[in-house]
Amino acid sequence: MSGSVSPLAPKTFATMPALRGVRMATASAGIKYKNRTDVLLMVFDKPASVAGVFTRSKCPSAPVDFCRANLPHGSARAVVVNSGNANAFTGLKGRQATELTAKSTAVAVGCSENEVYLASTGVIGEPLDATKFSGVLGSMHTEATGDFWFEAAKAIMTTDTYPKVATRSTDIGGVTVTINGIAKGAGMIAPDMATMLSFVVTDADIAPAVLQSLLSEGVGPTFNSMTVDSDTSTSDTLMLFATGAAAADGQVRVEHAGDARLSGFRAALNDVLKDLAIQVVRDGEGATKMLEITVTGAESDAAAKTIALSIANSPLVKTAAAGEDANWGRIVMAVGKAGEMADRDRLAIWFGDVRVAVNGERDASYSEEAASNVMKRQDIPVKVDLGLGNGRATVWTCDLTKEYVAINGDYRS
Amino acid sequence: MSGSVSPLAPKTFATMPALRGVRMATASAGIKYKNRTDVLLMVFDKPASVAGVFTRSKCPSAPVDFCRANLPHGSARAVVVNSGNANAFTGLKGRQATELTAKSTAVAVGCSENEVYLASTGVIGEPLDATKFSGVLGSMHTEATGDFWFEAAKAIMTTDTYPKVATRSTDIGGVTVTINGIAKGAGMIAPDMATMLSFVVTDADIAPAVLQSLLSEGVGPTFNSMTVDSDTSTSDTLMLFATGAAAADGQVRVEHAGDARLSGFRAALNDVLKDLAIQVVRDGEGATKMLEITVTGAESDAAAKTIALSIANSPLVKTAAAGEDANWGRIVMAVGKAGEMADRDRLAIWFGDVRVAVNGERDASYSEEAASNVMKRQDIPVKVDLGLGNGRATVWTCDLTKEYVAINGDYRS
Repeated sequence: MSGSVSPLAPKTFATMPALRGVRMATASAGIKYKNRTDVLLMVFDKPASVAGVFTRSKCPSAPVDFCRANLPHGSARAVVVNSGNANAFTGLKGRQATELTAKSTAVAVGCSENEVYLASTGVIGEPLDATKFSGVLGSMHTEATGDFWFEAAKAIMTTDTYPKVATRSTDIGGVTVTINGIAKGAGMIAPDMATMLSFVVTDADIAPAVLQSLLSEGVGPTFNSMTVDSDTSTSDTLMLFATGAAAADGQVRVEHAGDARLSGFRAALNDVLKDLAIQVVRDGEGATKMLEITVTGAESDAAAKTIALSIANSPLVKTAAAGEDANWGRIVMAVGKAGEMADRDRLAIWFGDVRVAVNGERDASYSEEAASNVMKRQDIPVKVDLGLGNGRATVWTCDLTKEYVAINGDYRS
Repeated sequence: MSGSVSPLAPKTFATMPALRGVRMATASAGIKYKNRTDVLLMVFDKPASVAGVFTRSKCPSAPVDFCRANLPHGSARAVVVNSGNANAFTGLKGRQATELTAKSTAVAVGCSENEVYLASTGVIGEPLDATKFSGVLGSMHTEATGDFWFEAAKAIMTTDTYPKVATRSTDIGGVTVTINGIAKGAGMIAPDMATMLSFVVTDADIAPAVLQSLLSEGVGPTFNSMTVDSDTSTSDTLMLFATGAAAADGQVRVEHAGDARLSGFRAALNDVLKDLAIQVVRDGEGATKMLEITVTGAESDAAAKTIALSIANSPLVKTAAAGEDANWGRIVMAVGKAGEMADRDRLAIWFGDVRVAVNGERDASYSEEAASNVMKRQDIPVKVDLGLGNGRATVWTCDLTKEYVAINGDYRS
């Protein structure tokens, strides 16, 4: 945890309602940090439907392997998350640590090991001492309470400077349902996905396959459209649980992804995912600015996203933002290197409402002062129109500062 | 130009011999910088064979378009290079500037406009005032001299902290020939290629198609295997000229790429390209360390290069190097995100001779102190063995420091 809070932190945090069917507890297991909580237990007293999206790294962590193997069972009773150690690239010891943690959890909660989900975040390559969990899980299960979302978000932080929480309510067939989410992440944040852990829970009654479909669809324009440093973690985990408690109010279980009753729920879920994703970007290590980069007029939505991410991941674009420099030449550079179709002479670029370039050259009415005023803001909208087709995408990133270098130059020590 | 010279600068510079058939002059045209040379004229008194490799940016600069159009003519009489302004993304004005420069050059040198080659480096998006060249080219042509390589290298610098020169001699069929090269580049340096300009000249007599084949082949393991910041310039230009003066000593013109007499020349050319490329990396903006990253045991050479570049471009690997942190977990991360086949449990990683990880976990005999000692060096060899096949590749990069952020946070101002 950094000493000071990101200047881009939310001014206020959402008030997180308790959510029927899920309870949480945190503890200090002493994995790495001193004097702070570093383990979260999330308990579903009745089996919850479960869906997950994980890192695309070819070298995933042991907990990611563990979750992937359990997911086809479709049912969750417990989630254990620790910060301080990622249990990644730990070989056989890593697998043993996940097995031991799952066993301890199953005993504490009274469930099967394949109803347990695990996530770890922190240093890679250090063996995780899972015996530290077994001593605390029993009392955590007893103490767990529903009104604990903010504390839960705090326990999973690593270099985060603030906890990330979000909540929305909507209805399914006239029955009110709620979606609560927490997330952590600040560096090694790039699409598909990040050292990013996020756990979202709803009291709606939705079948696992439907939940997976909603999550897989929702992740594209949200978590998979944000990048801090282009580095993809071995541990990225986004899970969605449905406790089904709303069935008690008469909500009829959703069994099909095409169910028309889902429209409000889908929008609310995507809102929660976007809210959390943007909070992660705004806590980007060393960040002082957030850039919202929109590319329009591309050959396809996929091409627009590739170009937007090329801009968002460019160290030269990001350092220019840090320096409040309206350096649109670097935007051109990043469009050019993306490899997608672009016609230099049709390109137009805006910072905020200031069009700085059009038809392949500087806008005749360009005002350096007006552009510089946009760059002085904390939130900088960048728009690029390629003038080729209807493809569009929006991604989010932060600036690259000396503080990022400082944070990552001695993270392990 | 930065105020202080890179700590990785060569201790001594090569003594560059004059090379028959080419003369150079520099001038201060006042493009952007004050009190320094910013234009280079290279003259071939007899038509030289020419080959070129250019940026793969979809938004190339006007001079790149100009050179590409002239290249099929195969013959060069003059090269004009300016620093301070890239003449990129300057629309119709950009094309007019290249045409005016070519016309002025053709008049000054007494050649056709399609025997002129142009390159510009510096700020993108600002119109280039080409009338500034016309006043100086005539006297430059008169004053041009063969013994001017070091001054030529200085005139094309932008944020470079030292000029880059290299020379090798070899023979073709028993006749001694020489290859001289200069380069510039320090940031916006990434494969395919960089804000990287390089001009290499030999007195050998070689046909243009053969020259192109040699250059296209040589660029892969040299300039296209180095990266400073993953950002690809709109202006990257590498050109190779053969004046043919060695014909006077009896060298019979090389007409075929398969000519067995080329073996020594090919090796010497690749040496010059590699020497210049490494000098560019060592002048990476803010660099304090050079990393030589070798990946072996990949499924193919191409897969090895993709993985090596993923490591080389990772901000987290580069900041760890800046912090002298033997953070091999970030190497695992970068292998995993590359998208190429990797088996976590077969991976082995070395810093220098210190094996830090093997079979998917920390080496049992790993010594943090020994690894840290390697990280304290200026030159850090990193080796990754994937244990899958015979593919291998080596790439070069530098660390990411606060100074990089400082240099690029206010470059335009």
